[in-house]
Amino acid sequence: MEQMKQYDVAIIGSGPAGISAALNLKIRNKSFVIFGQENLSNKLELAPKIDNYLGFPGISGKELTNNFKKHIDDIGIKITYEKVTNVYSMGSFFAVVCNDKSYKVDAVILATGVNYGKLLQGEEKLVGRGVSYCATCDGPLYKGKEVAVVGYNQASLEEVDYLKGVASKVYFVPMFKGQFSLGDNVEVIHSKIKSIEGENSFEKIIFEDKELTVSGLFILRDSVAPDVLMPGLKSADGHIEVNRNLETNIKGAFAAGDCIGKPYGYIKSAGEGQIASLNAVSYLYEKAISNKNK
Amino acid sequence: MEQMKQYDVAIIGSGPAGISAALNLKIRNKSFVIFGQENLSNKLELAPKIDNYLGFPGISGKELTNNFKKHIDDIGIKITYEKVTNVYSMGSFFAVVCNDKSYKVDAVILATGVNYGKLLQGEEKLVGRGVSYCATCDGPLYKGKEVAVVGYNQASLEEVDYLKGVASKVYFVPMFKGQFSLGDNVEVIHSKIKSIEGENSFEKIIFEDKELTVSGLFILRDSVAPDVLMPGLKSADGHIEVNRNLETNIKGAFAAGDCIGKPYGYIKSAGEGQIASLNAVSYLYEKAISNKNK
Repeated sequence: MEQMKQYDVAIIGSGPAGISAALNLKIRNKSFVIFGQENLSNKLELAPKIDNYLGFPGISGKELTNNFKKHIDDIGIKITYEKVTNVYSMGSFFAVVCNDKSYKVDAVILATGVNYGKLLQGEEKLVGRGVSYCATCDGPLYKGKEVAVVGYNQASLEEVDYLKGVASKVYFVPMFKGQFSLGDNVEVIHSKIKSIEGENSFEKIIFEDKELTVSGLFILRDSVAPDVLMPGLKSADGHIEVNRNLETNIKGAFAAGDCIGKPYGYIKSAGEGQIASLNAVSYLYEKAISNKNK
Repeated sequence: MEQMKQYDVAIIGSGPAGISAALNLKIRNKSFVIFGQENLSNKLELAPKIDNYLGFPGISGKELTNNFKKHIDDIGIKITYEKVTNVYSMGSFFAVVCNDKSYKVDAVILATGVNYGKLLQGEEKLVGRGVSYCATCDGPLYKGKEVAVVGYNQASLEEVDYLKGVASKVYFVPMFKGQFSLGDNVEVIHSKIKSIEGENSFEKIIFEDKELTVSGLFILRDSVAPDVLMPGLKSADGHIEVNRNLETNIKGAFAAGDCIGKPYGYIKSAGEGQIASLNAVSYLYEKAISNKNK
């Protein structure tokens, strides 16, 4: 692992909340890294027509995405195309862990959206114990062994492609529709998962009609559930708990957008990105003052 | 007074919070009235350059105002150019009182901004007792008598022009810079106000260097302080208190934008307009269900 890069803030997510937060940090001259994807947000990009993003009557998600891209280009913001697998609060700073890199930051803004779906039964207690959310990170552990992949999106096919070169066999369980032709040592399983089981670590998947025992299980969704992403983070009903300043229960960690709850809306998210980032700026200021006085 | 018009919702204020709320109510097919002004928001219109309204890099306040106007025109929203002087919670509904009209609504969204400035010493206890915020409403009470006007903006000059035709003499105390040539029976006083006084009702203004005894006093600001506008509304440090759903302490009354607190920001306000309006829609729905079950 290379030397940790350091920033004032890490923003996790490049939807309207994340990039609105980035704009405000840029204007306030803070250093930051924003993790996201090239199309910014799957949900936004696919929206056919948006009537309530004030200033853009009846715009398509695609057009609005292009406007957002132009805005961040103009102001000089670059998105880092890496997948954050974990954020750890280390007391006075945060460690943001991606596939093959780590970042050290003073504050975090979670803008992860809500596409993570329901956890599988048994998933939560087995994460990190044979159940992984990241093929690139943990694939090498299963060299020459059999693994299963539960994939929720097209992107998961890429990871199957990588894993089939590492593992001796890959069982792929698609949670979305499609025709799959993935290679000789990939077997596609079309069956409903009841639970995943294991005493101290993952052992097997229980399907409606069978069981599958493999060495490792990869669960690949659009996003990771927030409390799995960041251990100790308080959430309720799948949403991160925040106060009116959009502070979470962990000092220095803020959240904005769909991940903090309904009503979902693009401009609501953008507005919250602004609130979270400006409160993060205040937090950094107070932290700097208090360090100076030590 | 003519028959009260009825709507589902009244929105007070036509800045980004107010019109964003209006957009969402329109989309959700609610009937509503939005009170505001032709230029939507003085603050926004005068902003030289805005970098952090996501989607519009480096836009001027004037251009953004025009985009907002186009948006509400396109979707068919008309702003009502009346000044709301009071909002009364009547238990199961609200009475919104303007100069010469009243409206009956089920829910209220306060989006009044924060331009109201500090109250004068003695003002709060004398409002409605010789101290008025509305020349059109209360001017006729002072026919042939002497009145004073404390004016915070250009718009107050129009009201002086009206009052000088009603009162025998108008003393005008400008709280902004300018050259004033207002007519024979208008005397401009350039002095600092220390307090306004009166036992049971308004009697006189105490200036640093003199006193002025008149029959009535008009205080004309951009907005009325929220708790003066809406009796019983909880506020702290000049901001309306709300929870995460942007509900105030009064059932059915929501608030959004600068009036609920910092950080101030246009897209923060627009986002909050969306949150407040969609929560108002839920409130109306629950109210309708509960009325049906009675």
